Amino acid sequence: MDAVALIESTLTTAMLRAEAGDAPPKLAAAMRHAVFPRGARVRPRLCLAVATACGARDFDAAAAAGAALEFLHCASLVHDDLPCFDDAPIRRGKASVHAAFGAPLAVLAGDALIVLAFQTLALGCAGQPGALAGLVGIVAQSVGMPGGIVAGQAWESEDDVDLARYQRAKTSALFAAAAMAGAVSAGYAPAAWRALGENLGDAYQIADDLCDAAGDAAVCGKPIGQDNALHRPSAVAQYGIDGALDRLDAIAEAAAASIPDCPGAVPLRALIVQEAKRLVPKALVRVAA
Amino acid sequence: MDAVALIESTLTTAMLRAEAGDAPPKLAAAMRHAVFPRGARVRPRLCLAVATACGARDFDAAAAAGAALEFLHCASLVHDDLPCFDDAPIRRGKASVHAAFGAPLAVLAGDALIVLAFQTLALGCAGQPGALAGLVGIVAQSVGMPGGIVAGQAWESEDDVDLARYQRAKTSALFAAAAMAGAVSAGYAPAAWRALGENLGDAYQIADDLCDAAGDAAVCGKPIGQDNALHRPSAVAQYGIDGALDRLDAIAEAAAASIPDCPGAVPLRALIVQEAKRLVPKALVRVAA
Repeated sequence: MDAVALIESTLTTAMLRAEAGDAPPKLAAAMRHAVFPRGARVRPRLCLAVATACGARDFDAAAAAGAALEFLHCASLVHDDLPCFDDAPIRRGKASVHAAFGAPLAVLAGDALIVLAFQTLALGCAGQPGALAGLVGIVAQSVGMPGGIVAGQAWESEDDVDLARYQRAKTSALFAAAAMAGAVSAGYAPAAWRALGENLGDAYQIADDLCDAAGDAAVCGKPIGQDNALHRPSAVAQYGIDGALDRLDAIAEAAAASIPDCPGAVPLRALIVQEAKRLVPKALVRVAA
Repeated sequence: MDAVALIESTLTTAMLRAEAGDAPPKLAAAMRHAVFPRGARVRPRLCLAVATACGARDFDAAAAAGAALEFLHCASLVHDDLPCFDDAPIRRGKASVHAAFGAPLAVLAGDALIVLAFQTLALGCAGQPGALAGLVGIVAQSVGMPGGIVAGQAWESEDDVDLARYQRAKTSALFAAAAMAGAVSAGYAPAAWRALGENLGDAYQIADDLCDAAGDAAVCGKPIGQDNALHRPSAVAQYGIDGALDRLDAIAEAAAASIPDCPGAVPLRALIVQEAKRLVPKALVRVAA
């Protein structure tokens, strides 16, 4: 199975369904703008990697769950970039959705992508109908209230914020869902896979904070220095750059160590270690003494 | 079964789950503000009325589908009221969500309600897992692209709009889903029930346009005269007030006549006729000559 091709094909098929017939053309274009060309697709790749490690034979449900999580991730970026939040003009190296299409279509594109996520999941589970309720629950928990990405974003409107809880909700929840959904699609119980996803999500969030603090806007594909400018909680603000790099190392190790027993644990561990190395912004790579 | 009590209890249980544990308190309050105290709950009542007419014995799935549609309806109102759309300060006779909590929490409340809709549906189908995929499909189709309420709203950003298509997507889609979901929850095929829902949705949209054009802001629970002020397509703009009243009569009759064969067709028809009479703004009620 070529995971990248399967993910793009699942996303494309779902998008074609959303654009079919008499769809309003500007909203269709805004949704496409939010999802293509591809980002790193780390959440669906994690979902498929776990399904593979668990010995899945049919990848329809895992691909659908991964695509659902990617649509939800894209929706959250579109809404986070809105003028009432970050007012970010650039995302993934091109105009953000509201900069290109205006705020009304950006709000609607996010909404439509959230709906498309659940629709894609239901269609992808046609061959495994017994898995659908559990997968809807895992996906909804990772994006909604009380602990999903929407809740994470909402902590920015609270006066009293715990950084770990904020970041776990804002970023790690979707990664946890990706790992758990991959396991469920292969017939495994999800609970044991949460730690892997949460650790990877924590690692990505710290890497993102480092990119914002010390990265290159062209490499990051978005404006940098936003956490500081907007007084947002961040690992760099809390621990400094060296402290954040230390935490990233420790969390990546914890992620690799947290893989539950499964037929493909060894190659999955190698993949996790390799991905973790890619996360550190180039300017900050530390050479072993 | 007391339909109103069942609907409120289903909505309340779902909301309590969303607020549980470490939920960010302002977002939880914004979601509650959007859903309670209750609106007319016409979509869930239609869903339960159809399930009853179809002889359902277990109402969990119908109540969950009805609650999901109500959450989606509330989400669409919250987002429609945002400054970038109608900038409406009042909804259901109190401050709109963004007026009370600010635009960021209003965006997030809408997002969280969309997610809560699908989560509620999955949990409510625990006793009828075979119905879940179909119900997710019906609900998603009614709210997403290419023909659901999000698409309807997006037609306001297009230069060339067909009124019937716009209103069908913006309002009738959720009603069609309510009727179809009620039928599916009782083991009936959904297709035959679409016309009833679409006719009722068309009737509600015309009634809403009449309320906007000639109603009383206190009765409508929101500012009136918005269609005209914002140059929005409306049945009153297209047909005049008398023409819109004639269409409302004709569509209500078509709705009552479109009820498919089922054990409870006669009481359902009586309910539809009674509801249709309630729709005409009091100032416009025409006395038979």
